Amino acid sequence: MAKITKVSPLAPAAFPDLPQIGGLRFAAAAAGVRYAGRTDVMLAVMQPGTAVAGVFTRSATRSAPVLDCQAKIGGAAEGPAAVLVNSGNSNAFTGHYGQASVAAITAAVAAATGVPVTRVFTASTGVIGEPLPHERIVAKLDELNGALSDTAIEQAARAIMTTDTFAKGACATVEIAGQPVQIAGIAKGSGMIAPDMATMLVYIFTDAAHDQAALQALLARLTDKTFNCITVDSDTSTSDSLMLAATGAAGVDATGNAAFEAALQGVMLDLAQQVVRDGEGATKFVEIHVTGAASDADAKIHAMAIANSPLVKTAVAGEDPNWGRVVMAIGKSGAAAERDRLTIRFGDILVAENGWVSPEYSEDEAAAYMKGQDLVIAVDLGLGDGASTVWTCDLTHGYIEINADYRS
Amino acid sequence: MAKITKVSPLAPAAFPDLPQIGGLRFAAAAAGVRYAGRTDVMLAVMQPGTAVAGVFTRSATRSAPVLDCQAKIGGAAEGPAAVLVNSGNSNAFTGHYGQASVAAITAAVAAATGVPVTRVFTASTGVIGEPLPHERIVAKLDELNGALSDTAIEQAARAIMTTDTFAKGACATVEIAGQPVQIAGIAKGSGMIAPDMATMLVYIFTDAAHDQAALQALLARLTDKTFNCITVDSDTSTSDSLMLAATGAAGVDATGNAAFEAALQGVMLDLAQQVVRDGEGATKFVEIHVTGAASDADAKIHAMAIANSPLVKTAVAGEDPNWGRVVMAIGKSGAAAERDRLTIRFGDILVAENGWVSPEYSEDEAAAYMKGQDLVIAVDLGLGDGASTVWTCDLTHGYIEINADYRS
Repeated sequence: MAKITKVSPLAPAAFPDLPQIGGLRFAAAAAGVRYAGRTDVMLAVMQPGTAVAGVFTRSATRSAPVLDCQAKIGGAAEGPAAVLVNSGNSNAFTGHYGQASVAAITAAVAAATGVPVTRVFTASTGVIGEPLPHERIVAKLDELNGALSDTAIEQAARAIMTTDTFAKGACATVEIAGQPVQIAGIAKGSGMIAPDMATMLVYIFTDAAHDQAALQALLARLTDKTFNCITVDSDTSTSDSLMLAATGAAGVDATGNAAFEAALQGVMLDLAQQVVRDGEGATKFVEIHVTGAASDADAKIHAMAIANSPLVKTAVAGEDPNWGRVVMAIGKSGAAAERDRLTIRFGDILVAENGWVSPEYSEDEAAAYMKGQDLVIAVDLGLGDGASTVWTCDLTHGYIEINADYRS
Repeated sequence: MAKITKVSPLAPAAFPDLPQIGGLRFAAAAAGVRYAGRTDVMLAVMQPGTAVAGVFTRSATRSAPVLDCQAKIGGAAEGPAAVLVNSGNSNAFTGHYGQASVAAITAAVAAATGVPVTRVFTASTGVIGEPLPHERIVAKLDELNGALSDTAIEQAARAIMTTDTFAKGACATVEIAGQPVQIAGIAKGSGMIAPDMATMLVYIFTDAAHDQAALQALLARLTDKTFNCITVDSDTSTSDSLMLAATGAAGVDATGNAAFEAALQGVMLDLAQQVVRDGEGATKFVEIHVTGAASDADAKIHAMAIANSPLVKTAVAGEDPNWGRVVMAIGKSGAAAERDRLTIRFGDILVAENGWVSPEYSEDEAAAYMKGQDLVIAVDLGLGDGASTVWTCDLTHGYIEINADYRS
């Protein structure tokens, strides 16, 4: 927020043209939570009966808004629902004052919108440990409610940015019983990214109807394949929140529909990868693909050890095909590995096999590959059928610049 | 090695004046393993009967020399013993060729020195995955044997440096049965430092006699309190080795002697902290002191989560008293914590308590403290008696510079 200088080189060309979701309206406002002259609050209001699911950070020091959302998720899908998010202040580690802020904001949202307070969900992102000036947000609620619009989702995505260099959105259309169903989502996140359960702030909406308990199970299952497979810096936020709302305005029920699940997974993966592409200081987008592990869990441990290794990440930044550091990361991960069964590829280039560099390996060819912007590091452990794919970015001077100065 | 520019600002003023250890001689030579014009091989030869203990990396991809040492440690303390170490090439992930290199070098050491091959220990540090040109080392062995000297320990410490910016040594004297006993040690290490069991290359010698099995147990116990409590970058080397040799030349036995144990622990901690002080790019030395945890193990998990957090490390680099990131690291660690019982101090400054910033906290005072070179971050969890102290450094542009280019 303090140091948004230029857009990530890995950013998409433009914010996508997201579809309108029936039964859903957005508004954004500039409340001056921390900085003047930018929008920093978004409000989303959903029609009565909307099913709402959410997954949240597992951090032991999670924020007051997260605790409030966790208490509310699972309530009956009756009446309208609302989400209010502010940037600039995370309202985390703010003690009883933080709970009072959440109570004040949710009460004000309920009063302004008519949504029952038990269906008002909030999130806050920004500096930790400073009191949230919630009165500035409360003062904007009538303005927000009056501005609610079918077409303001991009403004909402911009209002929740902090160190993000671009607004993140993704969408999909799927047909259920001959009827088109829309899915649209927005996200923010670029640092403190190593989700455990959920990650960052992500809001996904569909006009399909959906059984709420099944929606919660679906969201948790897909999170493990998408947002829980990315890492920027191995640090986990105190505020990570991912919510999924099904308004039912399309008039068809998506519960148990395989095409809907696939489309939703695609939207979630798209948003998750956009977060990595906006990783603080990132210049390379890296897929780590591990196969042949003793189990899927072992594969993910190896993949995350590679993705989080500062030495691997700096080698990628330096466009150095330093596969020895990949070997190091596998070795330290703690999951099963046998040195002489490892196979390592950079893209299609066979780098190492049988416990040593491949006889056909060409350092020049690998160095040329590393100059690309999207890279794949593939490791086969030769032990079993376990597999995992995770996504990360490189570690550059940009990360140091952003984080050695920015008080987040 | 490639990019040694200037000495770490955290370095000691000079290499210490290490005592001679009876029954121990050193030599160093320039074998041109990777770079010309610098010493890169050291040989240490110990008198017959010397007890030798060692702990090594737990990496699943550990190097051929480590595997060879592990097979030999625990053998009878008969005959002389030798240690040969080269820098420039780690002989890790080099398959059968790597084992052949170890066999060639240990045979050559045995031939040149008369030490039985079962008592010849080697280590290699430097680039991973390239064949070790062991013939260059073998060719230097007669020269090394001829140059063995009581006073060459500093030259040995310099020969094993890679990205180190200063040679590391430490010593202690302790009296046993009215007889002075000397302990002297050397170490190398500055990156890929997050030991698990042992760490880096460390060689410690004493002229006391010591039962060998008890020496091994003592070394393992003290390693957990010293070298296993430091981290530079959370990455664990494939070659970490720590060896302790007791020549017995002083004529007294130190087995079970409490003063000897305390002095040895002091030497080990001194060397471990010197490694942190030479952490790649380090400008700050940071002690993380965790108390009040549910167990010692939990305390160490919290301490290491703080010490390894890129966001904490960059905040320290930026001299930013960003205690919110300390809260974040505790929250993500996975060990037990209750937000509202946390107390956080920077040095003597009470920063946070009762789940929020302390009413007496002054940001200006904390910012002034962070300008210091040696910092203490203390966390009390308010849950139990578990405690742990670990040491780390900050994460700076220097780390990126060293590792985005240097092929290690």
